[in-house]
Amino acid sequence: SIQDLTFGWIPNINAQFVLSDGYFVFIMQLGFALLTAGSVRAKSAKSVCLKNVMDVMFGGAAYFLLGWAFAYGDKTTCDDAGVCSSVGNPFIGTEQFAMSNLADTSFHTFYFQYVFAISTATIVSGAVAERIQFIAYALYAFFICAWVYPVLSHWCWTASGFASPTRLASLGPLLFGSGVYDTVGSGAVHMVGGVAGLAGAWVAGPRLGRFNSQGKPQPIHGHNAVYYTIGYLLLALGFFCFNSGTMAQIIAADGSSFGGVVARCTISTTMGLCFGGITSVLVYLAYSKYTTGHAVWDLFSAGNGSLLGTIVITSGCATFAPWAAAVGGIIGGLIYLPSSLFCLHVLKIDDPVDAFTVHGVGGAAGLIFYALFAEKDLVATLYGPLPDGGQRHWGCFLGDNGTVLAANLVWILIIFGWTMGMMVPFFYVLKLCGLLRLSPQEEEEGPDLSHHGGSAYPGLDKAYGDFESSVN
Amino acid sequence: SIQDLTFGWIPNINAQFVLSDGYFVFIMQLGFALLTAGSVRAKSAKSVCLKNVMDVMFGGAAYFLLGWAFAYGDKTTCDDAGVCSSVGNPFIGTEQFAMSNLADTSFHTFYFQYVFAISTATIVSGAVAERIQFIAYALYAFFICAWVYPVLSHWCWTASGFASPTRLASLGPLLFGSGVYDTVGSGAVHMVGGVAGLAGAWVAGPRLGRFNSQGKPQPIHGHNAVYYTIGYLLLALGFFCFNSGTMAQIIAADGSSFGGVVARCTISTTMGLCFGGITSVLVYLAYSKYTTGHAVWDLFSAGNGSLLGTIVITSGCATFAPWAAAVGGIIGGLIYLPSSLFCLHVLKIDDPVDAFTVHGVGGAAGLIFYALFAEKDLVATLYGPLPDGGQRHWGCFLGDNGTVLAANLVWILIIFGWTMGMMVPFFYVLKLCGLLRLSPQEEEEGPDLSHHGGSAYPGLDKAYGDFESSVN
Amino acid sequence: SIQDLTFGWIPNINAQFVLSDGYFVFIMQLGFALLTAGSVRAKSAKSVCLKNVMDVMFGGAAYFLLGWAFAYGDKTTCDDAGVCSSVGNPFIGTEQFAMSNLADTSFHTFYFQYVFAISTATIVSGAVAERIQFIAYALYAFFICAWVYPVLSHWCWTASGFASPTRLASLGPLLFGSGVYDTVGSGAVHMVGGVAGLAGAWVAGPRLGRFNSQGKPQPIHGHNAVYYTIGYLLLALGFFCFNSGTMAQIIAADGSSFGGVVARCTISTTMGLCFGGITSVLVYLAYSKYTTGHAVWDLFSAGNGSLLGTIVITSGCATFAPWAAAVGGIIGGLIYLPSSLFCLHVLKIDDPVDAFTVHGVGGAAGLIFYALFAEKDLVATLYGPLPDGGQRHWGCFLGDNGTVLAANLVWILIIFGWTMGMMVPFFYVLKLCGLLRLSPQEEEEGPDLSHHGGSAYPGLDKAYGDFESSVN
Repeated sequence: SIQDLTFGWIPNINAQFVLSDGYFVFIMQLGFALLTAGSVRAKSAKSVCLKNVMDVMFGGAAYFLLGWAFAYGDKTTCDDAGVCSSVGNPFIGTEQFAMSNLADTSFHTFYFQYVFAISTATIVSGAVAERIQFIAYALYAFFICAWVYPVLSHWCWTASGFASPTRLASLGPLLFGSGVYDTVGSGAVHMVGGVAGLAGAWVAGPRLGRFNSQGKPQPIHGHNAVYYTIGYLLLALGFFCFNSGTMAQIIAADGSSFGGVVARCTISTTMGLCFGGITSVLVYLAYSKYTTGHAVWDLFSAGNGSLLGTIVITSGCATFAPWAAAVGGIIGGLIYLPSSLFCLHVLKIDDPVDAFTVHGVGGAAGLIFYALFAEKDLVATLYGPLPDGGQRHWGCFLGDNGTVLAANLVWILIIFGWTMGMMVPFFYVLKLCGLLRLSPQEEEEGPDLSHHGGSAYPGLDKAYGDFESSVN
Repeated sequence: SIQDLTFGWIPNINAQFVLSDGYFVFIMQLGFALLTAGSVRAKSAKSVCLKNVMDVMFGGAAYFLLGWAFAYGDKTTCDDAGVCSSVGNPFIGTEQFAMSNLADTSFHTFYFQYVFAISTATIVSGAVAERIQFIAYALYAFFICAWVYPVLSHWCWTASGFASPTRLASLGPLLFGSGVYDTVGSGAVHMVGGVAGLAGAWVAGPRLGRFNSQGKPQPIHGHNAVYYTIGYLLLALGFFCFNSGTMAQIIAADGSSFGGVVARCTISTTMGLCFGGITSVLVYLAYSKYTTGHAVWDLFSAGNGSLLGTIVITSGCATFAPWAAAVGGIIGGLIYLPSSLFCLHVLKIDDPVDAFTVHGVGGAAGLIFYALFAEKDLVATLYGPLPDGGQRHWGCFLGDNGTVLAANLVWILIIFGWTMGMMVPFFYVLKLCGLLRLSPQEEEEGPDLSHHGGSAYPGLDKAYGDFESSVN
Repeated sequence: SIQDLTFGWIPNINAQFVLSDGYFVFIMQLGFALLTAGSVRAKSAKSVCLKNVMDVMFGGAAYFLLGWAFAYGDKTTCDDAGVCSSVGNPFIGTEQFAMSNLADTSFHTFYFQYVFAISTATIVSGAVAERIQFIAYALYAFFICAWVYPVLSHWCWTASGFASPTRLASLGPLLFGSGVYDTVGSGAVHMVGGVAGLAGAWVAGPRLGRFNSQGKPQPIHGHNAVYYTIGYLLLALGFFCFNSGTMAQIIAADGSSFGGVVARCTISTTMGLCFGGITSVLVYLAYSKYTTGHAVWDLFSAGNGSLLGTIVITSGCATFAPWAAAVGGIIGGLIYLPSSLFCLHVLKIDDPVDAFTVHGVGGAAGLIFYALFAEKDLVATLYGPLPDGGQRHWGCFLGDNGTVLAANLVWILIIFGWTMGMMVPFFYVLKLCGLLRLSPQEEEEGPDLSHHGGSAYPGLDKAYGDFESSVN
């Protein structure tokens, strides 16, 4: 019938939507590469670039061979009436390794999840920049895309995951009667990446010269502010689609409209980017004036604060009023500088791009922010009713109780525990095997010279080298 | 019914089209940032970057809080039959501040208009580069996105605007019985930005050393031709969607096809880019041979002439035959060099990226070109009949009289008067308050050092500085 | 009727899909520009950039005026029942010059074919970099987009082409009863570009100093590894859409689903990129360890091998299982280093970006790989039955005989012969006229200084120049 035929178009239209948005998410790899390259010294630029390229490649192989299966490889069973359901266990997927038996109607979803996986991976490249061996990074990229991220995404985003708000009723009750709300991955992508970066930066230790003999931080300047800027803008671009593409449809399976939900994600992202950056640049302006007497309009605060503001609104982008997303951005912008200073001065972590602050702290803030400001009607539009037909929980600042807050706080602890529990031993074993850290001499020369065949900028390395010598 | 249901898909499909094209228009921010960064000296690169980032942020806050409301915040009223119409006053919108009461079915339109607003804003960053204070630029970005651009767009693009060709019959007759045809914003975006740049460059005055004591221009070389090139190519990419995305639909509300109109915009853009660039590069080749005896294939002429050619066909991109768009590109390519030389040598304006020539002169040429070459049938497809049922006016070179030409010439005067009337006093007040211009010493050092915490290229600043000293 | 009306939406939805993917393919121009700029010396950077810009412009003019007509300008005739068909001759199109009489329903196809044409053209810019005159390159870009590529695409992709698998039965039998399978252009785009690059690099001869007096290659280092990286990532991004966009539809004309085919192309591309790059980087790691004792993780091997792996799966991307595409990537990664070394050390070809290896050899490998691994069912989905109703041939490793292999091997010979037969005389005539090669002095100074008005990096040219002097 005409109805069957035209309804058959919906999955195709949605597939193209997801692919198209997925391409923009892929652009975030360029963004991370440039942002990080600009934030490190010239002698590490090629190393940073190659690590981001390896995210794409090793991450892709890992997600293809293992990651997708652990995340989404639930067993599909069909009853006599031909109605199929995908039922797995609460902890891990077990089918579809190397995409075996995966129908091409899921290929666009695979692609979108692949670019999410490598986005998670690449966050770490900045945190551990300039001091770890390339082999360590390649192994790490494989590990996080094959195991750490996929398992977490199984827990929160599948019909069988123990923390999922869409868990099948037949598999047991929702966590706290609610499940965790991490719709777009403030937690499962950004916080994982940020915490993995913390683990790496902590186990590897700081770059030589980052702290003086009294433990006081010494500035190490990034070598190219234009790369940083373009990297930031490419990440901003990617975030529009990271957030809205997660909606996965512009027309729902029943034929109802979903374009407004998608556009809301884009608007929330815009608010987070704009208000996060403005807040953060003003905070730094005041801070620099107060501490040095000289007011600085700081590019890095603008960019990093803007990204943090965006990550605060990421998970709940589909459920916020625009004004609430603006508030989320402002909160992100306020968090940036204190958190960055705390990591550097108190924790003594050398994180060249503030990856833990932006993605780790920002991701946790995003899970909390959802629990405060998600709108009742918008949660209902996005998730439908609870399995028992009841209204889903929403933001406690907008009238609900703290159920989502409790669930999401637990989710924060789970993410932190899982990621640290996996990544600290991982990096520690590499360290014990002598595979983690560059030798002091290699680090002094820079990884480009020692491991990658030469400078990223033949002809300029002398000028850069003279400068580095002069500031040390 | 199946008809109601499937027709309900159209707005969703169109929303995704507009969002997707909007993301490409956002890329123009990267384009402007790189094109301008490459066109200035290294000591201003970080300043240029941050200004483009601030366009995105302050522009977004401005358009959210005020701009959209002034542009599109008309009162919506519904009659007893439930038929609603949006009726405002001819001069300004008055509702929907901070997106209040804006349905999410308009969120994609908000996003597209937001990226248009910041495209307008960013044009100026090049014209005033290397010499104005950051605070002045931040205030400017807010002002143009909150007020100057939105009010103009209300006039020409809404159902209530006094100059709009789609003005409701109930609100009065069309201007000249026609309204102005500025479909994609050769005028309302590009000319506004270009003229605002002229105002800024004029009030701020030239960079130190741009003119010698006899008033003769001295060359100031941009520091990175690769940045310029990538900036140009990103702008070209964005223009495809700037132009075609403005069509706002690929299927009309009545279910009829609109994909051909959209694709025509893309083709017109291609013609403008290609023929504008070829013409302009050949003009410069001849000019350099004639004036210096040495023929130069000039990258900047290729890029700027190509953009000018594109802006000539922008407003009417949906209404030109491909050959006509190629003619438009050629005209743009012919305009570039004479206009650039006139601004520099006669007007003594220091416009480092020729923003006024490309966007201001190009935008005005685009309004005129529409009036000459718009095809009768294509105008009818795009705009339908006049409110009284009559045929709309079209290009006077293709058989119509000069009605559109008269209307669009008036529109050029309105844009010039409004923009200069707003921006010259704005910049002048900043100048009186001592907030506009860097001090000579700050300008000599470069804004990156004085206002942004240090060089964009730590390690290379000495080489760049030595070069600057040697040419001054 | 509702059926007619809704079915009328399909072409519009597909047009937007093609345009959107086409914009991403346009991004490949940025990718080639950056990859090549990063791979050459600083003194040629502006020249490389302008050549890529000229591809866009001269290529666009050429494809508009002539190219499309030669490729797709078949005569359309309609019978009494109103059923129209497009019937041309087997060798060349003869209508629609300058897009005359081309309906706007084909404009999106024109755009996609335009970006394909300029992708073909730009491949050569790397192979002949740093030593040929600008005028030679401009003429070349026009020639390949107006003639060489269009005619080849007529042969393999139109309803009248003599090698086409979709040739109308009324025009004669399919070549080998099969036609050649070059669905996405491993041959008609990449191999053409790669072979044209070989022709140009061979006729022009190597850069001064590339081989010493004993004919031994001397290293010439690219000047910016970050440009290379971003160029590579932009090419990777473009390839997703180069491959999937060629499918031209997400819903078939009869209303059946096509999104799975499109997504399969994206997945195949992902596999080619990932496994090609991993393989190639590991091959170089072993090679460097074996030949120098020092293991190098080589960025250029990662990037070039990844692209080669992708080109291997390009033509058949819609017809491979994901595991097969991964195998294709691995094969591409294995081919890269030996082929590159062979061209340099045995053929003594100076190809600064290995364009012939990546695109020429990779393209030929892609045509062979199709013939080995194309799946029976997927070929049927994509092409339907043979004109006589029979099953189309598929991959000989998956059970069919070697028919496609024979046809595609012949196609490789045709492409090689046609391209060399056109391009060698073309470049040779330019050489005879003294228009091909820079004078030794101009080459020494660099084309930027001699032909393009000055260095791409004013202020850094001294540092770059000192370096070049020191290594020569």
